[in-house]
Amino acid sequence: MSFPLKLNTILLVVVVLFSFTNCKKKEVQFQLGIASYSLRKFPVDETISFTKQLGVKNIAFKSFHLKLDAPDSVINQTLQKCKGAGINLYAGGVIYMKTQAEVDQAFEYAKKAGMEMIIGVPNHELLPYVESKVKEYDIKMAIHNHGPGDKLYPSAESAYTLIQEMDPRMGLCIDIGHTKRIHRSPSDDLKEFFDRVFDIHIKDVTSDDADGQNCEIGRGVIDFQTFLSDLIKLEYKGIASLEYEINADNPFPGMAESIGYLNGVLDTLTK
Amino acid sequence: MSFPLKLNTILLVVVVLFSFTNCKKKEVQFQLGIASYSLRKFPVDETISFTKQLGVKNIAFKSFHLKLDAPDSVINQTLQKCKGAGINLYAGGVIYMKTQAEVDQAFEYAKKAGMEMIIGVPNHELLPYVESKVKEYDIKMAIHNHGPGDKLYPSAESAYTLIQEMDPRMGLCIDIGHTKRIHRSPSDDLKEFFDRVFDIHIKDVTSDDADGQNCEIGRGVIDFQTFLSDLIKLEYKGIASLEYEINADNPFPGMAESIGYLNGVLDTLTK
Repeated sequence: MSFPLKLNTILLVVVVLFSFTNCKKKEVQFQLGIASYSLRKFPVDETISFTKQLGVKNIAFKSFHLKLDAPDSVINQTLQKCKGAGINLYAGGVIYMKTQAEVDQAFEYAKKAGMEMIIGVPNHELLPYVESKVKEYDIKMAIHNHGPGDKLYPSAESAYTLIQEMDPRMGLCIDIGHTKRIHRSPSDDLKEFFDRVFDIHIKDVTSDDADGQNCEIGRGVIDFQTFLSDLIKLEYKGIASLEYEINADNPFPGMAESIGYLNGVLDTLTK
Repeated sequence: MSFPLKLNTILLVVVVLFSFTNCKKKEVQFQLGIASYSLRKFPVDETISFTKQLGVKNIAFKSFHLKLDAPDSVINQTLQKCKGAGINLYAGGVIYMKTQAEVDQAFEYAKKAGMEMIIGVPNHELLPYVESKVKEYDIKMAIHNHGPGDKLYPSAESAYTLIQEMDPRMGLCIDIGHTKRIHRSPSDDLKEFFDRVFDIHIKDVTSDDADGQNCEIGRGVIDFQTFLSDLIKLEYKGIASLEYEINADNPFPGMAESIGYLNGVLDTLTK
């Protein structure tokens, strides 16, 4: 205990400041959502009502729940159902786009349904065309990574490198399960590509390699304390939508457990 | 920045020690369980399989799942089902005991089913008789509080004062929902009566008064960060069993959300 006075004082100040930093109240600026692929075997009414039951206020529809070629009347009816339940239909996806016609269809669909973004997998050669549509419609394109073995976008990086010089409304939907399956930390994707992270598919996986299977959030290998803490620190303001891929015939308990886990972590991190 | 050297050094040591205390790895020494009242409308097989599906390894059976007068063959068959699923049948309850015959029946039942405790509501005048049975069978009695309006045990305190001088195997199952409903903090019950807390019914409620209704854990007014943190600090080694009272016809999502929330909080507190 014989530090020189100056060193001692500096250490004290550093430690006290560090304590204060850790004590600072953190706020969650993002919201949870549901990627309706999780409920692909259930009709749209049940999909909306279960989302409401979970206390989740955002949904991204997979085409099972709103077909890409749905007539205006069906789109409007579905939108009304969402609004009636207090659910924000913020996106459509994942939508694959292999031709210009499919890009056209996706943007018309998103526009009619009032979606703010398309979660998409456009062929690489279509990206300039997609960018032109993003500008025309002012609807964002969030490219979705699909993990090891995927030929188009095995990683978020593989999408980011192709769109980073494009219109700022060209970005990513980071699927953290697929990110983990290429041995990469979801937090690294988040930090490295943050300027273009428009959406997140949140899920857990059983291992950090190609064999990793989807599982209830909290039971797998993803460190949700770190990932959610990073979302808070970076002041992410988008949506993190649960995509629960297993137990398609009865996804309800697994989805509920996952949402409960996320809320438990968030409430504890921000307390 | 001109503290005298000694004060400065003392402050530094205190702050550093405080930081280390907060950084100390905490361990959860208790386990989660299911109070099968939550699944009262479902047969025992489904009750066991859903408990397993939730990743929960302990169950307390309400009589719906194992009748108090069940023949030995049924008791043994039910025990085998639990063992086959890797589920520990640790208690029976809540069992009401208004006569000596009912006390006798409860202890015989618990003995045959290999239960370590009875979660019970014995009439006050039967407590000395219950104590004699506790000694005879070496099976614990955990008295369950039922909140405002209950004539026998409206609070954990009302039970504690009656049994605190009795055999140390006479104790409490604290129902934290009912505790909250009498404007009392579950942590206060825990700390004040810790030497006799054998079991916990864990749940959330919508308000801290008689009007408080059961709800999914995390959605109500109970502070689970504090309560679970206190369970960890006090090194509680028993079981905290989810008693989910609402949505009896489809309790699965609400139970799963509750278990997910608890695991999310625990994983974050101990990280």
